[in-house]
Amino acid sequence: MDKKYKRLTRGDVEFFRELLGNFCLLDDETLQEYGQDETEDLCYLPEVVLKPESVEEISKIAAYCNEQGIALTPGGARTGLSGGMLPVYGGVLLSLERMNRILEIDEKNHQVITEPGVITEVLQNAVKEKGLFYPPDPASRGSCFIGGNVSENSGGPKAVKYGVTKDYVLNLEVVLPTGEVIWTGANVLKNATGYNLTQLLVGSEGTLAIITKIVMRLIPHPTRDLLMLVPFRKAEEACEAVAAIFREGIIPSSLEFMERDALLWTMPFVSGRVINVQDDHEAHLLIEVDGFDQDQLMQDCEKIVPVLEQYDIDEILFAESAKQKEELWQLRRKVGEAVKSHSIYKEEDTVVPRFELPNLLRLVKSLGKKYGFQSVCYGHAGDGNLHVNIIKGDLSDDFWEHGLSEAICELFEGVIAMDGTISGEHGIGLVQKRYMPIAFSEVQLGLMRSIKNSFDPKGILNPGKIFPES
Amino acid sequence: MDKKYKRLTRGDVEFFRELLGNFCLLDDETLQEYGQDETEDLCYLPEVVLKPESVEEISKIAAYCNEQGIALTPGGARTGLSGGMLPVYGGVLLSLERMNRILEIDEKNHQVITEPGVITEVLQNAVKEKGLFYPPDPASRGSCFIGGNVSENSGGPKAVKYGVTKDYVLNLEVVLPTGEVIWTGANVLKNATGYNLTQLLVGSEGTLAIITKIVMRLIPHPTRDLLMLVPFRKAEEACEAVAAIFREGIIPSSLEFMERDALLWTMPFVSGRVINVQDDHEAHLLIEVDGFDQDQLMQDCEKIVPVLEQYDIDEILFAESAKQKEELWQLRRKVGEAVKSHSIYKEEDTVVPRFELPNLLRLVKSLGKKYGFQSVCYGHAGDGNLHVNIIKGDLSDDFWEHGLSEAICELFEGVIAMDGTISGEHGIGLVQKRYMPIAFSEVQLGLMRSIKNSFDPKGILNPGKIFPES
Repeated sequence: MDKKYKRLTRGDVEFFRELLGNFCLLDDETLQEYGQDETEDLCYLPEVVLKPESVEEISKIAAYCNEQGIALTPGGARTGLSGGMLPVYGGVLLSLERMNRILEIDEKNHQVITEPGVITEVLQNAVKEKGLFYPPDPASRGSCFIGGNVSENSGGPKAVKYGVTKDYVLNLEVVLPTGEVIWTGANVLKNATGYNLTQLLVGSEGTLAIITKIVMRLIPHPTRDLLMLVPFRKAEEACEAVAAIFREGIIPSSLEFMERDALLWTMPFVSGRVINVQDDHEAHLLIEVDGFDQDQLMQDCEKIVPVLEQYDIDEILFAESAKQKEELWQLRRKVGEAVKSHSIYKEEDTVVPRFELPNLLRLVKSLGKKYGFQSVCYGHAGDGNLHVNIIKGDLSDDFWEHGLSEAICELFEGVIAMDGTISGEHGIGLVQKRYMPIAFSEVQLGLMRSIKNSFDPKGILNPGKIFPES
Repeated sequence: MDKKYKRLTRGDVEFFRELLGNFCLLDDETLQEYGQDETEDLCYLPEVVLKPESVEEISKIAAYCNEQGIALTPGGARTGLSGGMLPVYGGVLLSLERMNRILEIDEKNHQVITEPGVITEVLQNAVKEKGLFYPPDPASRGSCFIGGNVSENSGGPKAVKYGVTKDYVLNLEVVLPTGEVIWTGANVLKNATGYNLTQLLVGSEGTLAIITKIVMRLIPHPTRDLLMLVPFRKAEEACEAVAAIFREGIIPSSLEFMERDALLWTMPFVSGRVINVQDDHEAHLLIEVDGFDQDQLMQDCEKIVPVLEQYDIDEILFAESAKQKEELWQLRRKVGEAVKSHSIYKEEDTVVPRFELPNLLRLVKSLGKKYGFQSVCYGHAGDGNLHVNIIKGDLSDDFWEHGLSEAICELFEGVIAMDGTISGEHGIGLVQKRYMPIAFSEVQLGLMRSIKNSFDPKGILNPGKIFPES
């Protein structure tokens, strides 16, 4: 963290104010607000917050920062979980919140063209009105921006059947750190023309370019779904059941895992008494199937239930109404918020091949015993993506700040040994960058650095992220 | 084409022979054989053909060529249509044909790990035996290699429902031009850890690294399908019907377009009298739906037929047996071979948003009138991917070599104006590189060059490809 970026001068601020007027903000409250996201309790103050509303303005800001050597950090809805938008070197925080127009829902081609500052759920609802479906739905979909989803390659519960954000992005308009504006590809479903800059940009966490327009493919919206909640007396068996369901040839539209504590802690955050967690329920699976034909979905469930019954489960709850489905989904979506309110915590976003899930859970729990921490696990079991929440509780500040990383290293080494990796959907950002050498060799990191340098030769864009030495 | 690569010396050949024994080949017949693929009538002789069987051997070859400045061109089954494996600067032709083992079909995780030299259809059949499905199926699937498919990001008829090669590749083991061996990602369904080197490598046409292992996700194999062939009296209406079918919420598993001549020329290449093309049939659509439930597929067809009947069609042929389905598919798959036998030709691999297909067809025909060429069009209409075959016929050699590129430029400019691009699945390789400036600005090409340089600083790997000046 010894990089030197220019501190903003009065002249710099004047340049930005001339360009943006009142959308160039310097007051303490704004700086404080834009110095945080949803990652732990971290805060890094920017020197100025800019809120442009056009690609031309963004291009001018980038070119200026590049010329002046000012750190430039793009930010979305600040719902990230890896500190990807924290302006760790100060400088400019470029908020995309005013780039919030859905430019075209192209029903003829099943595509949407949108600006990055549109809330994901707003986009989903807008295309649903036309019978179209944009599936990726992170838990924060009611507040996160689609541009942030593209930057982090977000997933969510539907990814198991429908894929993650990258599977929907066809083309991006981006501003390079030098101020140049390019499109990364074309508005087509298949493309074998040059290197795939589009897929390189998706998930690059705002370190290569600033996304200003997104072209996504859409699919027909399924018209029906069935949802069931399954209590397991052994958490590991819940994990085992996940791979077993897929082996029956079923692809559920969601297959979520929640440990006992995750459910118990979340109950106060949802309205009404949604479910009855018995003393011997170690974990639950929330399983959804969707499609266009009720009979087909019933048949899918008839295949799933016997698989589940091979394990030590309690009574399956089938959601009987749209209201009950929504309640069960609220329970799942609010786990993150509930864990956050319960204690200071660190969340790891481990992902392994699906069948390794029981081994991953075992590893987490054995590390807890070894290092003396409590953990709450939940996540997208169908993808092998387990969110491991390590709870601070009574742990000493010293262990929390210095000792815990040894346990996390051990966790990540185990994940890599299972052919998995250290982040499935939250990204590396700031808080995971020190662990990158566990996932990648110096050769791999060197290639990534070189790519970064191709896009951002002066290193001004979102500095301090991804790379361990940054 | 003024790059200088070292001509092979006796010492170089001795190095290769010591490493590979009889799998280092220098005889004229072999050089001739490996100097060609399926692209037009082009031939460029390598100086030596190497057939390694391990990643270690490939690593040593790459490191040696890099050190010595010898051009190194990786080659697969030589079925490419853009000259991507032609060794235009001589040097080493590295054939991956002996890297032909399927290493593991991982039924627990629905994944396969394979070497690159496995024939795509062999791979498909092997996983099908386990009830699993690898959908991408280029017309050459009976002879092409899966490694070539990854290098070119191949598509095929199933792409419209199931996506292209890139949508199945999870992780790659590759040898860098410097000889280092890396994995590009992890064996997981979602990954937000660093830049997406995997997707950058897919479709990079052997210019960034040599693929030595491929990890792919698989899906449950559909158990049923229905196939229909629909004769249209107006070719443009066939194109219009494509987007109309999708608007009904149906995603066919294939939606192929064939112009009259494509069918007529292909008939002699298939056994039996498959269909009866009437004088007023301008084009046909071949439409397949697949899934797990016969009733569901019948319902899909019941939705498709009324859409088709809005247009001027003749009687729809529903395939009544597996044999008839296979005959109809043979007809589609052998079009390329038939066109090739009929005349010298150039094939363009245009792709546009699906709804623009009628405009694309109109453009092709109007350019034919303007420049005086005959064209035969067919392709994956569901993806907006039209293969435009320009027939040499009676055209002068001079026009063919020098005049035609003006027409192709005009075609590609039109495609770009429709938000499409110049190659959907065949790649740029050698024969399309001169048109890259139509698809990309200097800024975009500069980024791609810089990425190339990150992987291959001495420019030894597959030189002369993709970049217009190469």
